[in-house]
Amino acid sequence: MLAEIIAVGSELANGAVINTNSAWLARALQKYGLAVTHHTIVGDHTAYLRSTIKQAQARSQWIFITGGLGPTYDDITKECVAAELNRPLHLSPSAMDHVEDFFRNRQKPMTANNRKQALVPQGGEVLENPAGLAPGIWLEEGTKTIILLPGPPHEMKATFETSVAPRLASLRQSVICTHSLHFYGIGEAELDNTLSDLMASSENPKVAPYAKGGEVELRLTAQGESPAAAEKLLAPLTLSIAERFQDNYYGKDVGHLKNALAAALSDRELTIAAAESCTGGLISKWLTDIPGSSKYYLGGICTYSETAKQHFLHVSPKTLATESAVSADTAAQMAIGARREFQTDIAVATTGIAGPGGGSAKKPVGLAYIGLATADGVKTWRFQAGSLQCKSRDAVREAVAKEAFFRILKSL
Amino acid sequence: MLAEIIAVGSELANGAVINTNSAWLARALQKYGLAVTHHTIVGDHTAYLRSTIKQAQARSQWIFITGGLGPTYDDITKECVAAELNRPLHLSPSAMDHVEDFFRNRQKPMTANNRKQALVPQGGEVLENPAGLAPGIWLEEGTKTIILLPGPPHEMKATFETSVAPRLASLRQSVICTHSLHFYGIGEAELDNTLSDLMASSENPKVAPYAKGGEVELRLTAQGESPAAAEKLLAPLTLSIAERFQDNYYGKDVGHLKNALAAALSDRELTIAAAESCTGGLISKWLTDIPGSSKYYLGGICTYSETAKQHFLHVSPKTLATESAVSADTAAQMAIGARREFQTDIAVATTGIAGPGGGSAKKPVGLAYIGLATADGVKTWRFQAGSLQCKSRDAVREAVAKEAFFRILKSL
Repeated sequence: MLAEIIAVGSELANGAVINTNSAWLARALQKYGLAVTHHTIVGDHTAYLRSTIKQAQARSQWIFITGGLGPTYDDITKECVAAELNRPLHLSPSAMDHVEDFFRNRQKPMTANNRKQALVPQGGEVLENPAGLAPGIWLEEGTKTIILLPGPPHEMKATFETSVAPRLASLRQSVICTHSLHFYGIGEAELDNTLSDLMASSENPKVAPYAKGGEVELRLTAQGESPAAAEKLLAPLTLSIAERFQDNYYGKDVGHLKNALAAALSDRELTIAAAESCTGGLISKWLTDIPGSSKYYLGGICTYSETAKQHFLHVSPKTLATESAVSADTAAQMAIGARREFQTDIAVATTGIAGPGGGSAKKPVGLAYIGLATADGVKTWRFQAGSLQCKSRDAVREAVAKEAFFRILKSL
Repeated sequence: MLAEIIAVGSELANGAVINTNSAWLARALQKYGLAVTHHTIVGDHTAYLRSTIKQAQARSQWIFITGGLGPTYDDITKECVAAELNRPLHLSPSAMDHVEDFFRNRQKPMTANNRKQALVPQGGEVLENPAGLAPGIWLEEGTKTIILLPGPPHEMKATFETSVAPRLASLRQSVICTHSLHFYGIGEAELDNTLSDLMASSENPKVAPYAKGGEVELRLTAQGESPAAAEKLLAPLTLSIAERFQDNYYGKDVGHLKNALAAALSDRELTIAAAESCTGGLISKWLTDIPGSSKYYLGGICTYSETAKQHFLHVSPKTLATESAVSADTAAQMAIGARREFQTDIAVATTGIAGPGGGSAKKPVGLAYIGLATADGVKTWRFQAGSLQCKSRDAVREAVAKEAFFRILKSL
């Protein structure tokens, strides 16, 4: 069934606040078999909001509107819905009790404009908001259902979970399941080319590629009567794609290389340390982004000077003089030094030219060497980030860190 | 003038990816006097996208469409625009050169579907995309202007800044100048309360507060015939606000505490090292985010285990046993150890409980100690992140790093 989401608020329209509600809601609605086709943002503007509501009614069976339920003059959602549906606003005694309780419990005086939060369009059912004052509202109009939810994200989520999700579950006829397969080191076009047979032929399950941050994600979606039925459609497809691209595939629903690496280190009970130069702490940050990372991550050194490379990691002055800091030998010695000093199973090292300055014809911005020391010895890789892309410092450092994570993952 | 933004992509419609492009673009367009009234997201679906384009043409003078310019079968933006405007797609030789160069430089074969990225609706002008393959397109249709931009955020921003902003600037009739004043350690309501006289009274210059990531930014905007005229309105206001909140003010247009600290270290010719525990490399990353940071940043250690704290930083085993790793004494010894080992002018240390696990009644998640060692000795601060807000691991670590940066900045 088709649904759409309207988010109301001038702070969203002018870009001061990023709309996270609509994406959250779209994901949540999939569980109940509702596919969101349109998201709209309009400011606190009566004419724009009314025409958006009118349009949504003409095309969607389910309409979710977030925001604009509060007490101030620029909260206009209920007024606009009431006008479009020709259903006057009435005071809901239960909603009013909720508002009065709130102020009584906090021993604060209730200003008169708070009464506005208890107004409900005729025939609307009040949806409890356990996280705030303005309740949600459930309205049915012919075959259409219109659901109003508060705008603050934690109130929107709490109202949805408490008051909307159970009703949708009881109405649910089908389920949509989605999995993401993650690939590194292969282009979107190349994946698309190889998989075009699969992509074109199938609507259920459906395969769609997304490129992001130098990686490709394939999103597999299936609809079924139950989660098990949908999963049954996805399982063989997942397997065959993962096998076809096994050199580049690194995980299902893992979200980021760092999560795949964290899981692999945990599974194998390996400890790791990092010796960073060009990535400047990013590898350490990514490794420690994951709760519980102290089990496998013992620490890291960011050696941003040659002295620090010698002092902490015992990189040989001769290597630094003859090969320079950006070299395979330096990366190898950094990794070996970090593994010894932190006494870990493995250690990773990066050294390169993050830019924007410091590049040369022989060693351009984006060039990096990655070292990996293990019980079996040390390996190094030469990597060139962003040959044509704009080589922003951030982009280079992210690319080097991803390459390092992928290399470790495939070497374990 | 009224503008609207359409973001295309099923990953946006189904909520897998949060749309940050539209908010960024809405903010960017303000500079050129364009006010965004509607944002729409539609999936990769021809009928929905065509009707959205038709509707936008009926109501907005400026239409920005992001996404769907790539090489795959589900990239349909140009096809839909071409169909709605009745302008057939042609191959643009300059865009094709750009695509071919890309593959030539990488010595990779170009698959045939990449040709699609060089197609342009008749009459459309190619907008250089310095960060990727798919160029933007500028189309004029009567009094309407339709601008297509690539979907990946870094490509969208780079294409806008390089190829769209200069054209919008040349069309602009008046100039809007904006400055951001940055404050740390003061709430939005408190700033708002103190400045309500200024905010209510003035439309030009205008003052608006934005809370973000535990900080407050005051945006000062003035409109004038020339940049100089607008700046003249802003200068005295900037000065008086910076003075009124001097304890919390840390910079104009600096964007982030890390930039303010980098400038201060450079100006004073001081070198710095970092010893991190709970921030896990984030301080090192922030310090090295800035090009040329190797002038003042010599390196850092992330000591995620007690052994590493002793081995590298000489934290006393007795302190770790009696005071624990999360204590003022440990933070002080870490800072002193890092300053000595890296031989820097100053060193900063953090130790705390990033969560989600590991907290206790006495030492809850979010508690951290910050140490700062200088030639004058060592100072420490106790800091509790996220006293009321939700304490995500990321939020705690960012809050601790910001507190550390602000403390250093005010101690220099």
